[in-house]
Formats: sequence, C-alpha cells, structure tokens
Amino acid sequence: MSDTGSINERQIDQFKDLVKEGNKDALKTLIKEMAPADVADLLEHLDLEERLFVFDLLEPEGAADVIVEMQAPAQGRLLESLDNEVLSDIVEEMDSDDAADLLGDLPEDRARQIIDSVDDDISRDIEKLLPYREDSAGGIMALEFVAVNADADVQDAIDTIRHKKEDVGRVYSVWVVDGFGRLVGMVALTELVLHNSETKISEIMEQDVVSVTVDADQEEVVRMVKKYDLVSIPVVDSKNRLIGRITHDDIVDVMDEEADEDMSLIAGIMPQDIAEVAPIVISRARLPWLLGAMFGELVAAFVISRFEVSLTKVVALAFFFPVIMAMGGNSGTQAAIVVVRGLATGDISMVKIWKRLWVELRVAIINGFICGTILALVVGTWLSDFPLGVIVGIALVTVIMFSGFAGSAIPVILNKLKVDPALGTGPFVATSNDVLGVFIYLGLITLFLWGRQ
Amino acid sequence: MSDTGSINERQIDQFKDLVKEGNKDALKTLIKEMAPADVADLLEHLDLEERLFVFDLLEPEGAADVIVEMQAPAQGRLLESLDNEVLSDIVEEMDSDDAADLLGDLPEDRARQIIDSVDDDISRDIEKLLPYREDSAGGIMALEFVAVNADADVQDAIDTIRHKKEDVGRVYSVWVVDGFGRLVGMVALTELVLHNSETKISEIMEQDVVSVTVDADQEEVVRMVKKYDLVSIPVVDSKNRLIGRITHDDIVDVMDEEADEDMSLIAGIMPQDIAEVAPIVISRARLPWLLGAMFGELVAAFVISRFEVSLTKVVALAFFFPVIMAMGGNSGTQAAIVVVRGLATGDISMVKIWKRLWVELRVAIINGFICGTILALVVGTWLSDFPLGVIVGIALVTVIMFSGFAGSAIPVILNKLKVDPALGTGPFVATSNDVLGVFIYLGLITLFLWGRQ
Repeated sequence: MSDTGSINERQIDQFKDLVKEGNKDALKTLIKEMAPADVADLLEHLDLEERLFVFDLLEPEGAADVIVEMQAPAQGRLLESLDNEVLSDIVEEMDSDDAADLLGDLPEDRARQIIDSVDDDISRDIEKLLPYREDSAGGIMALEFVAVNADADVQDAIDTIRHKKEDVGRVYSVWVVDGFGRLVGMVALTELVLHNSETKISEIMEQDVVSVTVDADQEEVVRMVKKYDLVSIPVVDSKNRLIGRITHDDIVDVMDEEADEDMSLIAGIMPQDIAEVAPIVISRARLPWLLGAMFGELVAAFVISRFEVSLTKVVALAFFFPVIMAMGGNSGTQAAIVVVRGLATGDISMVKIWKRLWVELRVAIINGFICGTILALVVGTWLSDFPLGVIVGIALVTVIMFSGFAGSAIPVILNKLKVDPALGTGPFVATSNDVLGVFIYLGLITLFLWGRQ
Repeated sequence: MSDTGSINERQIDQFKDLVKEGNKDALKTLIKEMAPADVADLLEHLDLEERLFVFDLLEPEGAADVIVEMQAPAQGRLLESLDNEVLSDIVEEMDSDDAADLLGDLPEDRARQIIDSVDDDISRDIEKLLPYREDSAGGIMALEFVAVNADADVQDAIDTIRHKKEDVGRVYSVWVVDGFGRLVGMVALTELVLHNSETKISEIMEQDVVSVTVDADQEEVVRMVKKYDLVSIPVVDSKNRLIGRITHDDIVDVMDEEADEDMSLIAGIMPQDIAEVAPIVISRARLPWLLGAMFGELVAAFVISRFEVSLTKVVALAFFFPVIMAMGGNSGTQAAIVVVRGLATGDISMVKIWKRLWVELRVAIINGFICGTILALVVGTWLSDFPLGVIVGIALVTVIMFSGFAGSAIPVILNKLKVDPALGTGPFVATSNDVLGVFIYLGLITLFLWGRQ
C-alpha cells in the first residue's frame, strides 16, 4: 500500500543527499520504517560507496534481511567489499538456506573462512546444505521447521512453536514424525488454534502428506506445490526422515529462476545476464551464441553457394530466402514454445507425448498448406511463372512441416536426455532449421529447373 | 508422498477398464483416496464419455474441487456436457473467486441461468466479483477471509476462524479492521497460537500491512507478494476497506499465466493455444501470425527485388542473406528478452530505463564489431575480395547495432503505451527487423558497387 510501495526517484535523491551530508541519524530513522525489500531496492540504486555507507548503518539482523533481498550483481559487489567479520555476523542471522546460498556464491576460500568463524551450530547447518545441487530440493530447502511426535498433544506443539519461532520464522503447519524421525503426518496451524490444548496430535493430524525427497529436481518440487496448492512442503531423505522444508516464497523464486533460464535459452544468453548491467559482461554472455549462430548461418551461405547455377539462372529465387527462412523459424518456434511450456508446467506429460507430436504434425500440415497456396499464387503472379510459383509454395509447405515437427520433437528429445528442453527453442535449433530450410527450398527448385530444361 | 504422486499409464488403464465394466463402487473407492488435482489429471486422460461417467460419481463438493484443478480445454468440454442443475450444485461448493472464474468462462445466458439458480448469498458474491477485470486484483481475489476488530481479543479471533473455516479454507492470518471496515493491521496465525485467549488483538497486531487496491493489475500484485514474501495479501477498495484476499496459490497461477502470455507473444501464438489439443483450433491460433510474418517477409522480398541489378552483378551477395537476417534477429531477441524479463520481474524499473538502453547500445557495438570483423575476414577470403568483405562486415555491424537497440527500445515503448512489452519480441518486430536488415545490407553494398564502377 502507500508507505510500503516501491522506491521512487525522489526517495533515491533524498537518500543520496543524506549520505552526502553524512547524516547517519536521519538515515537510520528512514531505514527503520522501511521493509528490508525496499532497503535492498534502494541500495541497488546507490553507487558502491553510498551503498557501503548506508549498509554500515544496519544491524546484523537487518543487514541479513536486506542482503537476501538484493539482486545478484549488486549483492555480489557489496559482498566483495565487506570484511569477513561483518559478513560472519550477518550469516549468523540468516536462515540456513539463505546462508548456504550466499556462501555458495562466494569464492571457496573466503566461504571456508566465514564458515570457520561462525557459531558451531550454524556452520554445521551450512555444511549440511552445501553439498546439495543448487537446483534440487536439498539446494532450496531450509533446515528450520517445526515437528512433533504423534503422541504429543496440542500444547506440546504450541510449546515447540514458541521454542523454535526465532529460527523458523513463519510457521504454517506442524509436521508429525515417528520415533525414527520419519514423516507420518501434518497439522495445519488452523487446527492447533481450533483444538484445546489436551487434544492428541494423532487425532487431528492429516496422514496424507505430500513431500519431496531431498534429491528431487526443483522443477518437480514446483510442480508438486502448484498441483496441491501447498504453502510449504516437507523434504525427506531416502528413508522418509524429515530433514527440511521449502516454503511458498522459495517456490516463487524458483519459478522466476526457471522462467529466466527458459527465456535465456530461447534468446541465446546466459541466465545471469538478465540482472547484469556491465556491457562487457553482457557482451561476453551473448557473444558465444551470436558467433555460434554466425558460423551456423555461414553453413547456410555455403549451401546456397552450391546452388549458384540455379541462382544465376533465376536471380529472383533469392527474393524469397527471407520468406522461407522466417516461416520455417516461426512455425518451428510456435511448436517448440508450446511443447517447452507444456513440459515445464507439466501440462504435457510424457504419457501424452506421442499424441502431442501427432497434433503438431497435423497443425504444420494445415498451416503449411494454407501459407504454401498463398505464396504459390503471389510468386506465380509476381514472376509471371506459375509452375515456379507452385514449386516455391511446395518448398514452403515442406519447410513448415519439417520445422514444425522438429520444433516439437527436439524439446521432447532433449527432455528425455535430461537436458533443458528450452534449448530446443534457441538459436542452435533455429540455425539448423535455416540451413535445412534453404537446402530444401533450393534443392526442390533446382530439381524443377533441371526438369524444365 | 508415493500415493499422491502423478498419474501413470497403468492407473489410467485401470480406470478405463473399471469404467468399461461400469464398476462404480471400485471407482468410488479409488477416487476417495486421490487428491482432487490427481482426479483432475486422470479425467483429462479419459475421453469425454468416460470422463462424464467418472465425474458423475463425485459428490458436489468433490466435483467442485476437481473442476477447479482441470485444464481449460478439458474443463470446457466437461462443463458443456453437464446439466445446469448439476453445475449449480457444484458452483455452490466453490470459493467465490473460482465460481466467478468458471461462470465468466461460460456463455453469458448459461451463466445467468446458473447465477439465478444458486443460493442468494452465493449469487450475491458472484455478482460482486464478475465486474472486475480478469487480470486485476479484483479478478483474482476471493471474498472469503477472516477479519476482526482491533478491540477484539485472541479468543474472539479464534471464534471467528472457527465460524468462517468452512468458507475460507486455509487461514494464514487474521486481518484487523476498524469500525468502517478499513484495514488497520494483521495478526499471523502463529501469534494467535502463542498468546493466551484474553490478549487484545491491538496488542499483538502488526500495523504495517502490505495490501493492494482492487483495481491493481495482477502483475503488480505478484510483484508485491514476491517482494515482501507474502503468503496472502489483502485487497482493499479506494477507501482502504477490506474486501477480499489473494493467496499464494493464486499468485503461482498468475505467474504461470503471465509466463504463458509472454511465451505466446514471443512465439506468435494465442495464450489459450498452450493447453489446446485440437489441431484445427491450434492452427487457427497460430495462422494469423504466420500469415502476418509471410506478408512482412514478402516486403523483404520486394526490397531485395529492388536491388536485382546488384544481385545479378554479384550473385554471391545472396549467400549472406541468412547470416545478416539471423544475426539481426538473434541480437534483437537477446536484447528484447532481457528487457521484457526485467520489466516483468521489476528488475528494470522505469527509473533505470535510459541507463539500460545505453547499456544495450554499447553491448550491440561491442558484439557487432567482433562479429563484423570475423565476417569481413571470412567473406573477403571466400570471395577473394577483401573490400567487399569489409562492406559486408560493416553491414553486419550496422544491422546488429540497429536491431540490438530496437530490441531493447521497442519493449520499453510498448510498456509506456501500456501494451504488453513481450509483443516486442514477437514475429512482428522480427519481421520488421528482417526487412530493415536486408535493406541496410543491400543498400550499403550497392553504394559500394557504384563507387567501384
């Protein structure tokens, strides 16, 4: 609402002025009224020196909350400038998952120094989390959660919440474990509120709890949470022992991250580029894809040069390169994006995949036929050569069918190979399609020209 | 977890067999053990007749939960086949937001019949929600929430929860309103659990509550929830009176919807296409974009034809159309996607936008220069004509700079015009870029060839 909205230019200027004046008291007062996310936002708008000045005014706990909310590049530069001692104090105030993420981003020897200098119980938690793949359930879970035994009563559960509240932050449900720490049920907080303190947990718990194993892929975790509308999901080890929890805000972060990743693969950039601001870093992230595409298209150039005889005979053939290439590209991308999204959201399960490919092939046939007919008429009229127009039209149908099918099949194949299917919509596939499109087009027409001689 | 996983082929076959046998009891038993989302999944794998048979076995409440979880096309076909009477019973069991969504999707006169036949308090709620834009806070909020007055105590709040629980479903926090119904605070459920029943709500409530107004755009709602890691967000009217709530699962749905929309614009398809399965419907959703692109590329063909003299003189110029077009397309898409994502996630605020455009221009200069140099060498060597190679290289630099800048500027302009910036990454912009790219390339080279004569 009003006072917790976004940062505007006026506020940024106000802060910059106060920093210039060195007015620490006024800055502290302003910051105290702001949400950590807003302070993070603000810091990103200041230059490094101003940023350090303001950051210095935060207490370790506040500093931890703010750092977690900052974007990668600004956060990285801030971390580089902080003393190990300051950073240790901040890490001690963080949730285990945030602390592990932050340390995972630091150079290894610096991370080691920090881990050695924090409290033992905190370093133990961090060491537990660091080995998990960043994109697995273990990589996004926190070790803080509230669990009770099935033979406990409501009062016990409330006492546990009271005891753990500092660490856990927001509690949505209490999980129930057996004597071996295995997950056997859950009680929503609402139920605790509505039952009196002597009620046995076993009487009010739900036994059907959706959980994920620690090595599950984060996309799988998101799928489960979305499907069952969960606010938090327990993470268990291979023996079903409860070891962590993932909450709704982690899920939202993962969704953003996956969307960034998909977009990156589609566009041919590196994911981290999206939040980046230094031209040389961005350039480095995009250049490999551009160079790859350029050499790929030089193959297309080579293919065309092989048909130089046909081209010399009918220069007008070159007019339609853009049409052939763009139409192949567009219909391929259309098919690919639908399949990539479907696989990402789980709408297209591997069960239905053959059906989907068959659907896509039919779509390509319909659209190819319509576009091909129109192009045949246009080219025939334009060049006053209807037989040639028909051949150009047939080439277009062939190209659309080929790239439509390839566009839907390649993501599926990548998915089977456990590669991110979004790669199938990127410059690599587009370039291969261009090469093949040009080959099909010039090949068909050359055959036709031969026949006519 | 195991028994609430996804539906597999074996289970689908099992269900199909039971339907064939007409074994209602066995089906009912199986369904009772399944989560609504899993039943929905299953129904989507059955054909319409089987689907109706199974659906018939659900109680109205269960049926409501299942319908909400179904994908649009399968859901639509199921709704068409249901009697108004059955549908009314189901609507009565739904949350207000789900009911309004479902009725909004029905033909108007049928929706009217259903609204007239449900209980008065339910039709009143639906009538309240229907006028809001589908993509506004009002369009995604539910009217069910728990609110108490600031002078109430914890026991009052608990009683209110008990009273409202049927309607509200999961409760995460109790909102606090003044005598005029204006939002003045909130109490997390954890606090209710931890304080004794006589504690005054005013003593334990947080006064800084993030809320959204009912006409806020859904993207804005998502941004707030993400920024402040909220599990639910209250919706207020222009006078700050509490009128609804939006929960984490709605946010996740909106994020998926927005991602679908962005992807659709990028690929040139209609959003609903993503979950569609009928080839003719998909074809209709994609064809307009294909035809638009085709006529756009015919403009490119026309531009090329204007340079026929140069082409006849040096046929080899046609070899490099794919390189020029693909490189312009790729660098434009790279820039565009980063800007579109940045605007969508709020990473790129309008405050920083000029800085961003300047960054993108420098990136284009760097990458254009590198790619152009390499291309100049390749073309010079290949055709044994280095001056011509240099001109091709310069053309590439120009095209990359132009399309890189256009790729980042167009989404920004669209955003200012309140049009979805993702449109700037779609086939329309790509096609315009192709036309301009070809023009720049052939124009520069023709000037060069003239000079050489």
